[in-house]
Order: sequence, then C-alpha cells, then structure tokens
Amino acid sequence: MSYFRPAIDEMTGYVPGEQPQPGTKIIKLNTNENPYPPSPHVIAALQNFDGEQLRRYPDPLAREFCQAVSEVFEIPENWIIVGNGSDDLLNLLIRSCAEGSDRAVVYPTPTYVLYRTLSAIQAANVIEIPYPASWQLPIEQLIAANGAITFVASPNSPSGHSVSLPALRELAQSTSGIVVIDEAYVDFAEFSALPLVQEFDNVIVLRTLSKGYSLAGRRIGFGIANPQLLTGLFKVKDSYNIDVIAIALGTAAIRDQAYKITCIEKVKASRTQLQKDLAALGFTADESHGNFVLVTVPQDNAEAIYLALKARGILVRYFKQVGLTDKLRISVGTDAENQSLVTALADLLSE
Amino acid sequence: MSYFRPAIDEMTGYVPGEQPQPGTKIIKLNTNENPYPPSPHVIAALQNFDGEQLRRYPDPLAREFCQAVSEVFEIPENWIIVGNGSDDLLNLLIRSCAEGSDRAVVYPTPTYVLYRTLSAIQAANVIEIPYPASWQLPIEQLIAANGAITFVASPNSPSGHSVSLPALRELAQSTSGIVVIDEAYVDFAEFSALPLVQEFDNVIVLRTLSKGYSLAGRRIGFGIANPQLLTGLFKVKDSYNIDVIAIALGTAAIRDQAYKITCIEKVKASRTQLQKDLAALGFTADESHGNFVLVTVPQDNAEAIYLALKARGILVRYFKQVGLTDKLRISVGTDAENQSLVTALADLLSE
Repeated sequence: MSYFRPAIDEMTGYVPGEQPQPGTKIIKLNTNENPYPPSPHVIAALQNFDGEQLRRYPDPLAREFCQAVSEVFEIPENWIIVGNGSDDLLNLLIRSCAEGSDRAVVYPTPTYVLYRTLSAIQAANVIEIPYPASWQLPIEQLIAANGAITFVASPNSPSGHSVSLPALRELAQSTSGIVVIDEAYVDFAEFSALPLVQEFDNVIVLRTLSKGYSLAGRRIGFGIANPQLLTGLFKVKDSYNIDVIAIALGTAAIRDQAYKITCIEKVKASRTQLQKDLAALGFTADESHGNFVLVTVPQDNAEAIYLALKARGILVRYFKQVGLTDKLRISVGTDAENQSLVTALADLLSE
Repeated sequence: MSYFRPAIDEMTGYVPGEQPQPGTKIIKLNTNENPYPPSPHVIAALQNFDGEQLRRYPDPLAREFCQAVSEVFEIPENWIIVGNGSDDLLNLLIRSCAEGSDRAVVYPTPTYVLYRTLSAIQAANVIEIPYPASWQLPIEQLIAANGAITFVASPNSPSGHSVSLPALRELAQSTSGIVVIDEAYVDFAEFSALPLVQEFDNVIVLRTLSKGYSLAGRRIGFGIANPQLLTGLFKVKDSYNIDVIAIALGTAAIRDQAYKITCIEKVKASRTQLQKDLAALGFTADESHGNFVLVTVPQDNAEAIYLALKARGILVRYFKQVGLTDKLRISVGTDAENQSLVTALADLLSE
C-alpha cells in the first residue's frame, strides 16, 4: 500500500515559473513580478521592525493589516480574511467547499493552473469550460456545470482580458455555489468586481500584494466577502498563516496607495509601448489588463523562441497547453528590460 | 445546501492560545514562546535585508535554508522539506495521507490539539489512544489502530514527557503507515529521534524554529525524511510557503547554534527552579523536557486559578479536557516572570 492517498499518487505537483537564484544576471519576464521595488514605507517598516517581536506568535486575525484594508477599501474589518498569498485563500476555498463529484470545481480555461492542482489534491471533480476565441465568459456553461465553487480570474492570466461586471453578476445570480473572483491582477485593470460582494452572498473577491504592490517575495493575499461566507474559511485557515513581519509590511504597502498607483501607471505605459513594439515585429496580442501580454508568435515556433530567449538570459513563459502552444506570455518589465526583449526577438526573427 | 463540505459545517475551528495585542503589559506564559529574543544574527539579517528582493517570488525549495540545515544537522539537502511553521507540515502530512476510515489518523492523547482539527478538515477518521498515568507510549494500541499516519509528539505537550527511542523504533517497525515524530520542543530535551529517519522509510521528524530559536513570530518549520517519503508532501506543498525574509532569518538562526544553546540552557535552569518553587506551593509536576511545565493544582480549582492569574495580568494555559481539568500548563519565562507567577500563586493560595 502506498503511504499516500490515491489522489496524491495520481497527480503531479504544480510547477511554478522558473526562479533563478538571487544574483543571477537575467531579464525575468516569466512570472509577472512587478519591475519596481515595494514602497519606501515598506522598506522602512522592514528596517525599523522590532526583532524582539519575532519570539511571539503573530495575531491570528492580522487585525492591524485588516484595519488598513478596511480603511483604504472602505470595507468592514470582519469582511476580510488574510492569506499567505492569495494561493493560500484559493486552497482554503477548495478545502472548505469542494470534494468528489457532487461538489465540483468549475472554471473557464485557459486560466491559472493552480485551480486544477488544488482540486486534484482535494480529489474534487473539475469541470473546465473553454473560453471562446472572443474571451467572452461562457456563462451558460459555467452555470450548467453547477460548481460548489466557480473560479473566474479577472483580469485572467494568461489571456489578460477582464470579465465584465454584468457577466459576473449574471454568473453569481444563477449559481448556487460560491463564485470566486480572483483579482490578482486587478491593480493593472480599469475596474474591479468588489461591489459584487455587497450584492451577492456567494461572491468572494481575492486580492494579492504580490503584483501591484511588488511583494511577491513575502506573499500576502486577502479575500473580501460577507462574514457568513468567511466562517467556513476561518475554520480551515492556519491560525498563524501570516507572520508578524508580513503584517507590518503589508500594512505599510496598503497604506501607500499613491506609490502603488505611480508604479502601476509606469507599468501600463510600458505595456502599451511593448505591445506596439511586438506588433511591429509581427507578434499579435489582444488588449491586456494585467502586467503581462499574451502574444501569438508570427511563425508556429513559440517554444523555440522561448528557448532561444532563455539561452540569451531572457525568461518568458511558454505553456505547453492546448490553445497556447503558439503563444508566449511576457511580463511587462522596465522599459529597458522590454527593449532588450524586443531587440532579442528582432534578432531571432532575422536569423 | 450549505456552501461548505459537511466536514467543515460539522467541525469547530482550532482555538489558539490568547495573543494579547502588541504593547499590552502582560506576563505571557500560555503559548510556550521563548522568553529570549532571536539570535543577534537574525536581527542583523532582518535589518540588512535587501528590500528590492521583496518584489520577486521566493525560491520554492528554500535552498539557502535547507543548505544551512543540511550542514548543521548533517543531513542531505534532499531529505529536508520546509514549512510555514511545523503546523504547515502537519497539514501537508494529513492532506497527503489521510482520508475517511481506511486511512485514519492515530495518536496518543492528550497531545497537540491541532492533530484533531486538521483531521476533521480532511474528514479523516481519528483514533485517539489515551496515555496511561505513567506517560508510557501505548505502543500496542497505536500499532493495532493501523493509522495511515501516526503522530507522536516528543517531547509531548502538555505533558512534557519525551518518548524513548526504543518505543518509537518499535512503533515505526510495526506500523505500515507513516510515523510522524513531532519534535517541536526537542531543543529543550535530552535526545532526538532524528537517527530513526535513517533506519525507517516511514519515519519523518518535524522541527520548528518557533520555540528553541525564538521565531514564533515568523513561523518556520522543517521536516526530515527520506526523499521518497517527501515526494507526496512536495506535491501538496504551496510553492511559496516560505518567503524571502523567512529564508534569510531562518538561515541565520540555524547557523547560530551557540546562541540557541545559551538560551536553552537558561530556560532549562529556570524550568528547574520554577518546578521547585511550584512544588513548595503544593503544585505537583512530572519532569518536563519542554519549555513548559504541566502542574496539578493543590485543590481542584485549576480553572479558577487560571482566571485569577489572568485578572492579575498573567496568562497560563488551562485545557478544558478530560484528564487535564485539574492542571495548568505554564510556559517557562524569564526568572523574573516566573518569580512573579510564583508570588501571585502564593497570594492566591493564601486568600
């Protein structure tokens, strides 16, 4: 007999994007990290942190952080749950709600691959509904699938499209399970679905500080939903999923919206320029509302280009998945990094 | 229909020990935190941390930390898995191995209550075997229970006893599932079960930096087992369960064994004195190998004493559980803190 559950023996683990060792000279446009450092207030909070506090357990509710979120986003504190990255919250949601075939996990694809991995760990049935070429949300099929939990990433990765509020509203209204709107990339988008948590008992919106706030290295996420919906998640949450340093840094980051907005505006301007430069080389892309672009390569050699870029010290993301094999997902870097990428691509095309 | 799985609706969440807000004037002897701050090298690592690194995802394998553990404990790096506290590893173990009644979770009681909570989340059958008054491991009953996973905390909380290596060896030999030796408190004990991971394919030893290394505020744990046993855990582990700061602080802590040993020796000396002082007041206790003592109160009024101490600003732990209602678990503080406790108890007894 195996030591492990059958579901674990049958699955393969999630493979995160490559992370070169610190100090490696590389242009890293593969995991949608923010090209700018976190707020100076975050750095100050780190440097002024009282090391004596480290010997004590953190506040299980991370109240200092929740208070900052509450004030900045005008949400009551008890509508907030904090996670060790929003991945932690995805995990809590699946563990709380999904199992077997009666309590399935539903989502449109392609999207964040972790939804599938976490469902496999939970031995929950997964129903994947392919997006049409227009990236319109396949609402009717999602509703028909009747998930205990339905995930919609908006903006979605790797496509970069945002899902409209009317579409999300229709989905929430007609689904008996929980609808999770995963807004990991919302800071780079034009609108948020946050108002829907007030309208619907079954909607939770997830946010992360990894992208917009440049805190991927620390991993802080939070979920917003009515307190009744959060009860099940709190039962599953590790008491100390967020540590004393994260609470301090996350609080400083949330309170410095001005800095975040400045960085976001720079990334958005760079995104526009990058799309223009890539288009000039024959790489086509839909509009993106994230800090990345999904481009279709001019010839059917996306994997070869990915490898050739890697050999030149430039990492982008290639997905060996149906519908994505002719595409690359490129994170928006600094203008200098983007220019290096464009130059390298021009070189490769002329070879 | 509930949004949640039946197992979640039926369970209550884990209730951690009280955590007063930072700044509150209180003598906190309820959650077995180390009374001394972390190593000066940890504080230096915090203050010198390069904030720019925060924008990048952490190394999913925390290799820098594993290398330090490997060197200090003379274990190959691929025998190590890192967790967001050892609670994270307990969770990974239960998720990987346990479910339903065929794959039960087995452990002697009283012990760490989280084993029960995590099993409830997983809807895994739990078989609890009561310890006899002698605190001898009930080996035959544990083996007969045939767990997919068997937990033995050594030293155990709240009892403070260590389980002998021959007893653990016998258990590992005769159990077909995984045997987890939870050594959260081992830094305060006289011996470790670490050699057993070399002898048995089915043994994993868990460690934490929360107690011996004064890092409860950050939460870093690690597990040691043969690489084959770790495969299932890696599939379930969140890629980024440990952040870039934790890797730096944990590495500094592990590499400063001299500092840790100095703190541990102080705690052990204080433990001896505290037990002597409590005995003089009529509070009896078995020998403890943790940084706490479990005392039986002279009259049957443990809860009243717990509350009276709390009213005086001294927190200790009272468990409303069979076999523990006449007892208090008191963490070993600084000598001054312990003296305040003893004085308060003397006052209460003379009232």
